[in-house]
Amino acid sequence: MQRPSGRAPDQLREVNITRNYTCHAEGSVLVAFGNTKVICTASVEEGVPRFLRGTGSGWVTAEYGMLPRSTGTRMGREAARGKQGGRTVEIQRLIGRSLRGAVDLKKLGENTITIDCDVIQADGGTRTASITGACVALVDAINHLQRRKKILDDPLLQLVASVSVGVYRGVPVLDLDYPEDSAADTDMNVIMGEDGGFLEVQGTAEGAAFDRGALDAMLDLAAGGVRELVALQRQALAEG
Amino acid sequence: MQRPSGRAPDQLREVNITRNYTCHAEGSVLVAFGNTKVICTASVEEGVPRFLRGTGSGWVTAEYGMLPRSTGTRMGREAARGKQGGRTVEIQRLIGRSLRGAVDLKKLGENTITIDCDVIQADGGTRTASITGACVALVDAINHLQRRKKILDDPLLQLVASVSVGVYRGVPVLDLDYPEDSAADTDMNVIMGEDGGFLEVQGTAEGAAFDRGALDAMLDLAAGGVRELVALQRQALAEG
Amino acid sequence: MQRPSGRAPDQLREVNITRNYTCHAEGSVLVAFGNTKVICTASVEEGVPRFLRGTGSGWVTAEYGMLPRSTGTRMGREAARGKQGGRTVEIQRLIGRSLRGAVDLKKLGENTITIDCDVIQADGGTRTASITGACVALVDAINHLQRRKKILDDPLLQLVASVSVGVYRGVPVLDLDYPEDSAADTDMNVIMGEDGGFLEVQGTAEGAAFDRGALDAMLDLAAGGVRELVALQRQALAEG
Amino acid sequence: MQRPSGRAPDQLREVNITRNYTCHAEGSVLVAFGNTKVICTASVEEGVPRFLRGTGSGWVTAEYGMLPRSTGTRMGREAARGKQGGRTVEIQRLIGRSLRGAVDLKKLGENTITIDCDVIQADGGTRTASITGACVALVDAINHLQRRKKILDDPLLQLVASVSVGVYRGVPVLDLDYPEDSAADTDMNVIMGEDGGFLEVQGTAEGAAFDRGALDAMLDLAAGGVRELVALQRQALAEG
Amino acid sequence: MQRPSGRAPDQLREVNITRNYTCHAEGSVLVAFGNTKVICTASVEEGVPRFLRGTGSGWVTAEYGMLPRSTGTRMGREAARGKQGGRTVEIQRLIGRSLRGAVDLKKLGENTITIDCDVIQADGGTRTASITGACVALVDAINHLQRRKKILDDPLLQLVASVSVGVYRGVPVLDLDYPEDSAADTDMNVIMGEDGGFLEVQGTAEGAAFDRGALDAMLDLAAGGVRELVALQRQALAEG
Amino acid sequence: MQRPSGRAPDQLREVNITRNYTCHAEGSVLVAFGNTKVICTASVEEGVPRFLRGTGSGWVTAEYGMLPRSTGTRMGREAARGKQGGRTVEIQRLIGRSLRGAVDLKKLGENTITIDCDVIQADGGTRTASITGACVALVDAINHLQRRKKILDDPLLQLVASVSVGVYRGVPVLDLDYPEDSAADTDMNVIMGEDGGFLEVQGTAEGAAFDRGALDAMLDLAAGGVRELVALQRQALAEG
Repeated sequence: MQRPSGRAPDQLREVNITRNYTCHAEGSVLVAFGNTKVICTASVEEGVPRFLRGTGSGWVTAEYGMLPRSTGTRMGREAARGKQGGRTVEIQRLIGRSLRGAVDLKKLGENTITIDCDVIQADGGTRTASITGACVALVDAINHLQRRKKILDDPLLQLVASVSVGVYRGVPVLDLDYPEDSAADTDMNVIMGEDGGFLEVQGTAEGAAFDRGALDAMLDLAAGGVRELVALQRQALAEG
Repeated sequence: MQRPSGRAPDQLREVNITRNYTCHAEGSVLVAFGNTKVICTASVEEGVPRFLRGTGSGWVTAEYGMLPRSTGTRMGREAARGKQGGRTVEIQRLIGRSLRGAVDLKKLGENTITIDCDVIQADGGTRTASITGACVALVDAINHLQRRKKILDDPLLQLVASVSVGVYRGVPVLDLDYPEDSAADTDMNVIMGEDGGFLEVQGTAEGAAFDRGALDAMLDLAAGGVRELVALQRQALAEG
Repeated sequence: MQRPSGRAPDQLREVNITRNYTCHAEGSVLVAFGNTKVICTASVEEGVPRFLRGTGSGWVTAEYGMLPRSTGTRMGREAARGKQGGRTVEIQRLIGRSLRGAVDLKKLGENTITIDCDVIQADGGTRTASITGACVALVDAINHLQRRKKILDDPLLQLVASVSVGVYRGVPVLDLDYPEDSAADTDMNVIMGEDGGFLEVQGTAEGAAFDRGALDAMLDLAAGGVRELVALQRQALAEG
Repeated sequence: MQRPSGRAPDQLREVNITRNYTCHAEGSVLVAFGNTKVICTASVEEGVPRFLRGTGSGWVTAEYGMLPRSTGTRMGREAARGKQGGRTVEIQRLIGRSLRGAVDLKKLGENTITIDCDVIQADGGTRTASITGACVALVDAINHLQRRKKILDDPLLQLVASVSVGVYRGVPVLDLDYPEDSAADTDMNVIMGEDGGFLEVQGTAEGAAFDRGALDAMLDLAAGGVRELVALQRQALAEG
Repeated sequence: MQRPSGRAPDQLREVNITRNYTCHAEGSVLVAFGNTKVICTASVEEGVPRFLRGTGSGWVTAEYGMLPRSTGTRMGREAARGKQGGRTVEIQRLIGRSLRGAVDLKKLGENTITIDCDVIQADGGTRTASITGACVALVDAINHLQRRKKILDDPLLQLVASVSVGVYRGVPVLDLDYPEDSAADTDMNVIMGEDGGFLEVQGTAEGAAFDRGALDAMLDLAAGGVRELVALQRQALAEG
Repeated sequence: MQRPSGRAPDQLREVNITRNYTCHAEGSVLVAFGNTKVICTASVEEGVPRFLRGTGSGWVTAEYGMLPRSTGTRMGREAARGKQGGRTVEIQRLIGRSLRGAVDLKKLGENTITIDCDVIQADGGTRTASITGACVALVDAINHLQRRKKILDDPLLQLVASVSVGVYRGVPVLDLDYPEDSAADTDMNVIMGEDGGFLEVQGTAEGAAFDRGALDAMLDLAAGGVRELVALQRQALAEG
């Protein structure tokens, strides 16, 4: 089996994490998983949604979008159509849940951090790239709050990263690009913390069902991939 | 550890599957997982969405809703608010994907089967009950098409059922009700075919991350639960 | 003239009123007028809409919906289409007005009772069945408030019930089912209190106009029908 | 009992029907019932809605709106709020049904006449003024079709007019203005053809229920009022 | 070159400004630029939008609409379609900005004046007629506030009026009607104060670009037109 | 007078035009006017909107958006709010009109080019940067059509560019950045072709009205700025 990109089954695409990509946000990251490129910003606002007011707890939430021509064929602009599609809603809920797993909301105080992940170029794995990049933007936003003395404790529990795994032509592979993704039998997105624990596992059979053996092989691949991604996050955070 | 309901960790709630619950739909099932009750109908229409026209292939899709007072506190009616919430969208996409895994769409011809899952009473596990009941309604709708000679082959690949598993007070448990669900550390929905293959695995850490051991234990519980549910589906389909 | 159902012109369909149909709502009724089946729940919330705040007066309002496959052909789901249709809006306003006629809002205190009428199976007369069932759910919700000592007085003025009348093949008939309704020359919905007074009269010519004689005959039929329905409401409320 | 306007109980307000009020529409009428002023236009388009295509039958439909400051306090603009309110929907459905009662749709051919009723000044009775004025605009639109030889038969069955009646301070009165309407015990809108038949009767108790005697008295008043209105419609149509 | 209307290049259409056109609004004007007729109302409300609360400053805003059959072909009703079109939004923003240029918002106190411009008949130049008429309604609303002693100072800075200019068949012309507008090479809307200063200049090439000479000629024409319009505003305000 | 950026009154910010910024679109440009950065893509689709079908003419249209955190404070995402704001609508209509001025639609055949301008970082002048960058993307898309032999003629009439001018502290200045824009007395956006003709002039007084002298000075500045921008467009198109 030859992957379309020529990568080894357990090989990530080239991953780049560029901090301070835009100038206004408290955290701003351009993340690239190969040709998939996402701008991830973290915006800090005082106050929390109604259901948390007065609890002393903070909130982390996420929104996701794709530029209309981030894909091979132009997609309708969601703002023009007047609603976010089901896929968008599903992904932004996943990003929000995953990043809340990286944070002790109590230690965030009554502040809200809103993550925006906007895909400028798509080639498979936009949600996993988004989570991986957004976590770095989130750390920058937390650091911003600490430097301003808005929070005294460190609410960061651990770094969180995400990678896709799948079964392509019968072989478990890591970090699928679009040609693989659209042809894979199974597609799984795994979000893990740097301690190796799972925050979210979402596996879907495309076509035939998958068995326990395939599931185990994919989880092993994912664990290796996340370890590498966390190292890249660490490295990006160490710079500048 | 004592479950609030007094059930054993690997024990399903009492499950009832009532066919022909309403009179108009080609398939109509009332499914109860304990106090969770969902009306699942399968509606047959000739024709398919635009992206399938002329391909000879059929389509299966799903919509999900909750009656405003299916829950302890009244929820706003989505039709009145003018949009479906994120959770609704996520669930109906899951139901649709899972049921497409039960069907050879090619053999369905250019027909669309729309599944409606409407929760009339909620006590945890509405999506797993929905999938399990909807699969029975789907079979009835397929039989309807066969009796009318609209299709000659049998497009049913296998029965599909779903159950939730989680870690409650440190112990893996099967088929969480609402008191367990709202207190669980981890919550996973598993959709499997009667052949034991996975169609979808969606696990979410609530609070702390979960490790591979917990994941394995939950998957084992789910496999047992789905086996029982498929037997109940078979039994319901054998009646009448 | 033979009615499709074989009923006498002044004969109601078999009517069933089942209280405590679901477990969460303060009032929950399944009402059946023959094959027309509606779940009516009454939900109590503290507080009132803005225009009543500080007046000491309560509020009763209603929402109405049909499950997509409650009808012979599947209707689009209003939540998915993003708005309630004109017929839905018209009916829920009628239900709300009618039930406010059953209640002394001043004695309700600043509480809101929201009635949800969700049709699970339709065979004509869904709005009249809804009002008749909802009034029983409303009484249960009021009793709930009284048991909790949230209100001391009895805000119930009288029971309210509703029935349709029409002219079918030249003959005035009571409680039209779908085959009659779709072929009737005239269709009228009458909402009356148990004292025999009118709360609402809505008559529509379908095709030819109707004269005063037909109107009088229909009103006489309606008065008899409502008397029977109120007796059935009383009987249901006397049980359990 | 003294009516606020000093009118006799069976006295209409001054009614004016001005044809050709604006220049583009096939029928364009300014109707005034006292201070209530409505622009009614009838627009002819070839073709019919999907459900009538190929049947040879035409269609008549209506839309209703109020200018934001047609009332004492400015109302939000429905176009800006992004939806029509329940009252608007209810009224435009009533206008459409009533005018279809004036027309033999078969003789209209596959043409659609859309009635727009836009209230520029409101003082009670906007829906009855709308129907009365719209019927004149409809006749002008039909004449337009006949002059252009688009239709050969005369689809007009009869003129249709509408008036409100109510019980104000215990006395049945005709054609309520806003001060009466907002204080009335009962409010009824009656739509009749020039032959004296009923097209629609909609009576609502405001506060206490009303009895059969009050209903009869109101219907008598309405019949007299509609006779006068039809005479005014005839007179307007005879001019020019 | 002959203008379709036979007017001289620098000749306005007949302009009429009728105050107190409807009875409820604090300012209510019917403005006619030839066959273009717009109802302009100014509504006063206490309070200001959130971004101005506590600043002591008032607010002036505008909304614009066209009756569906104000035009040659019926346009869909924006309230029914559920959103205002791009052209509507653009025009109402322009009207609001222009009228804010007529007012010292500080002297208005925390009051909001909402201008509604509703076109009942369109023949080109609806936005310029709207601004010109709305300014008169605005003055009436300000006078209302002064008579009620709600404001003590005079917030009116100057009258504001607007006219269109364009190049029609190579010749710069003033106040284009629809036949000219739809055939013009260039179309420009100019809003000026009575002191001759520009509040807004919006010129658009239709087809070919226009040069500085054409621009200069159009601005000269506009200045003359606005002078005449301000005189007509003054005259209308002097009456009654 | 010192500009906040230290620029001379007639000095543009540093302008960069990067072609082929993303990989999927037929034209893809990152344009920077100083810190204002916009991704402009041009997408080619066969076919035209309904009103042009069968005419042989093509269409050019535009959509505009800002990433939520392209600005100093996070703006709500329009897709999540369910509608595009008035400013967005106004800008995208302006971009579309301007670019249609660059193209002979007849020579484009029945193809549609959709321009998407998405602001990733905002510092004033997003609409002028968008038009200037979008024109380059448009040329690339036209070249794509020519290379594929989808069109044989050259539909490009001329390059089009845009710049803002204003009066800042009494001095006319070119290409305002955000600090200038928010404090300017007058703000004007000028769109010109490379032949020096005007496609659109939109000037707005902020606060006081502006006189003819200021207008003339601003137009002179704009003409010089557009000449420089066209040279930069030419240079970018000459590369690669």
